[in-house]
Amino acid sequence: MKRSVCVICGLLLFAVVAHAQEQQFANIGDLKLQNGGVIRDCRVGYRTFGTLNHDKSNVVVFPTWAGGTTEQLKGSIGPGKLIDSTSHFVVAIDALSNGVSSSPSNSRLQPRMRFPIFSLRDTVESQHELLTKVLKIVHVKAVIGISMGGMQTFQWIVSYPDFMDKAIPIVGSPRLAPYDLLLWSAQLEALKRDPNSARALDFAFGELLLTTPTDYNRRKTREDVFADLEKARNDTKRFEANDKIRQVQAMMALDVARDFGAVKAKVVIVVAKFDHVVTPGPATEFAKLIGAKLIDLDGDCGHLETSCESRRLNEAVTQFLATDYTDK
Amino acid sequence: MKRSVCVICGLLLFAVVAHAQEQQFANIGDLKLQNGGVIRDCRVGYRTFGTLNHDKSNVVVFPTWAGGTTEQLKGSIGPGKLIDSTSHFVVAIDALSNGVSSSPSNSRLQPRMRFPIFSLRDTVESQHELLTKVLKIVHVKAVIGISMGGMQTFQWIVSYPDFMDKAIPIVGSPRLAPYDLLLWSAQLEALKRDPNSARALDFAFGELLLTTPTDYNRRKTREDVFADLEKARNDTKRFEANDKIRQVQAMMALDVARDFGAVKAKVVIVVAKFDHVVTPGPATEFAKLIGAKLIDLDGDCGHLETSCESRRLNEAVTQFLATDYTDK
Repeated sequence: MKRSVCVICGLLLFAVVAHAQEQQFANIGDLKLQNGGVIRDCRVGYRTFGTLNHDKSNVVVFPTWAGGTTEQLKGSIGPGKLIDSTSHFVVAIDALSNGVSSSPSNSRLQPRMRFPIFSLRDTVESQHELLTKVLKIVHVKAVIGISMGGMQTFQWIVSYPDFMDKAIPIVGSPRLAPYDLLLWSAQLEALKRDPNSARALDFAFGELLLTTPTDYNRRKTREDVFADLEKARNDTKRFEANDKIRQVQAMMALDVARDFGAVKAKVVIVVAKFDHVVTPGPATEFAKLIGAKLIDLDGDCGHLETSCESRRLNEAVTQFLATDYTDK
Repeated sequence: MKRSVCVICGLLLFAVVAHAQEQQFANIGDLKLQNGGVIRDCRVGYRTFGTLNHDKSNVVVFPTWAGGTTEQLKGSIGPGKLIDSTSHFVVAIDALSNGVSSSPSNSRLQPRMRFPIFSLRDTVESQHELLTKVLKIVHVKAVIGISMGGMQTFQWIVSYPDFMDKAIPIVGSPRLAPYDLLLWSAQLEALKRDPNSARALDFAFGELLLTTPTDYNRRKTREDVFADLEKARNDTKRFEANDKIRQVQAMMALDVARDFGAVKAKVVIVVAKFDHVVTPGPATEFAKLIGAKLIDLDGDCGHLETSCESRRLNEAVTQFLATDYTDK
């Protein structure tokens, strides 16, 4: 009897956990934007992992990278991963215009390029609405994000300095460096082309800059290059140029100095020395400015160094999240 | 009287030297191509610097880089420069499809994309014709080239192993690495579209990859990025997409192993560690293969390291050219 109860408990627990990890949506109504515009009937996608403890003190917010979804964040959540969901209640949130949360590709009232230009400040606002009004969470243990998720993390700590105890922007930036602006300008130019050409160019920019030439040449043959490009050119599934355009515009407009007051969170900033997508200068300067600890990954995987050095990164994040600074 | 003679001598000498440095052309007739095609009425542009000595033993051949002209090579020729023209007779040669030698932009019989696809093997052939049939030079002291000029230099030493005593391919490649192929594939894709967009993307690729992100961020402000792109978009002068397309195709097809026999020249190979246009792998391998001396420039100017470390490079080239290996 005892044994069968446990089986039932296990099944129930599995059902609860599995359900929690599923895609959920919150309708937060019209979202007023910094530029005066409005995202009508704004919907924010999210998934939760782990269990909220009784005093709601174990929440970790985890926004998506550019073009990414909370589905793709799953691989970074769990025991031994970037964020351990056995001790934390992780709220992974789909950034605006990622094709899951309100986006040019899915907005009924503001479809395609009628979807307004917004900022990462607005993206953070949509997440703050989700957390405070829908999930009734008014303070979190940490905000952690990778790449554009790191940019949102920088925005979080200046927009809502009292909202989190800790923050870890990973290969993100508080304001794009000239090189990054050039890169995204070129990508916007490429996205204007006809779909096949746009797909091929978009793919090529990713391949050329996400890692380093050394890493690319180690992984690819000369034949791979042409096969990969041909595949990208003909891959019609799920490439929403308009969604990407609006996210790129949001990244290019980012400048957290505009909202800058006293940063209250304990912050660890992670950069990659040979990152050719989010070059490490501005985040490094910001670390100095606020006296944050800087972790400088120096391998040749570039922007993807977070994968190549995942063990080192995961250990550093775990340790930082476990440290109780109130002791000091 | 003596003084006035010297003045006249000086003026004459100046006139001769000035004339020699001027753009000259050689008509080499129909050039049969490796792929079976023909460049009709092929014309090869060149300039000479310095004086040919009595036994014709001081000739240095200096082909152009991609998109470059012999006009642009002037800055690398002279006392204290890459090639000293006080001791050498420098024959700078315009590579096919550079807009000076026969090219899509200037061919009367084969204009625009009716200009045939050719290889760097054919480009070297056009230079061999110029040297042997027009200038009556059947052996040279050295072939030296930068970037695509370095690729031609690799092709020279395998196509005509007895033709030169020495060779110095600088940031060139005997066969493009996967990364380089991807980069040029993307550029070909970018060149296909409307001229304004093609110009902007072509400019962006150059800016993103000619140096390194570190170097770019040091030189440029965020405002520069948009001003530069706007200028490129509207710069209508002298951007011949068709000329570039044919040169890019020639670079992508390069594979000197196809013609590889015994290399007889003394070779010094120069690469740049953080070169993101001509990645250094294949040239480095080739140096090992033939036992050539390798000079590895490791600054953060990338492909333009040859400018940033010009003093070191010029000294190394001068010393190599001055060494008489027959003594040993």
